[in-house]
Amino acid sequence: MADSIFTRIIRGEIPSHRLYEDDRVFAFLDIGPLSQGHALVVPKEPAETIDKLSDESAAAIGRCLPRLARAILKATGATAFNILQNNGRAAHQAVPHVHFHIIPRFENRPDGAGLEITWRAQKLESAAGADLARKIIANLAG
Amino acid sequence: MADSIFTRIIRGEIPSHRLYEDDRVFAFLDIGPLSQGHALVVPKEPAETIDKLSDESAAAIGRCLPRLARAILKATGATAFNILQNNGRAAHQAVPHVHFHIIPRFENRPDGAGLEITWRAQKLESAAGADLARKIIANLAG
Repeated sequence: MADSIFTRIIRGEIPSHRLYEDDRVFAFLDIGPLSQGHALVVPKEPAETIDKLSDESAAAIGRCLPRLARAILKATGATAFNILQNNGRAAHQAVPHVHFHIIPRFENRPDGAGLEITWRAQKLESAAGADLARKIIANLAG
Repeated sequence: MADSIFTRIIRGEIPSHRLYEDDRVFAFLDIGPLSQGHALVVPKEPAETIDKLSDESAAAIGRCLPRLARAILKATGATAFNILQNNGRAAHQAVPHVHFHIIPRFENRPDGAGLEITWRAQKLESAAGADLARKIIANLAG
């Protein structure tokens, strides 16, 4: 598999506005931000989607999200934000290397809407829910 | 602060379709799913937003995301999915207790769109990016 653009950014072959780095994680500003402070947090492990990522890399990313979020909120003045991680082209994944977006939202700025979401909730019937939960639990064990 | 509905679900005071539980994490099916298999992954620690969550709880959630995602994909047949975590009412957070949504997407089902996103990318100018990165890094250190 060819190196993703994120692997090349991690190696420094492509410049980025780096925010944070440790043994497993690299974070930098998105150059196509949805709002000021939009950052990307990526594992150094080159997994394409999170279901293929090691537990250790996933834990390392989780661990740095609170700190990065606090620093972005303080630096930008944002008070609300979304964390988004897309898997698969159908789910809006553009680069085939796991990445978490941190997307601030500013209520009083015309360019501050950040992530725009449409929420069409359905209803989970009790019997269907119990059946689905059993299937998922069986696959967790497997 | 009053217990959130998620704290009451974790304690078993409100029933749920539980998928997974460990010392720090509880996962269950969303009863208002955007698509089949829509699950919520929450820390037992009752932080309102992820910037207020401990590193340990955030790492524990990160660690179980790959496994939960694999099990949901296998149980539902979905191939694409989004992970979303909202912070603040302005960012669509409805329950004041940190939660990660895992939202499958099914391309050939009328009820399978899952999370619908509008992506209005802006442009990060190089000087503005360098200045913002410096500010965020200064806040990371503090």
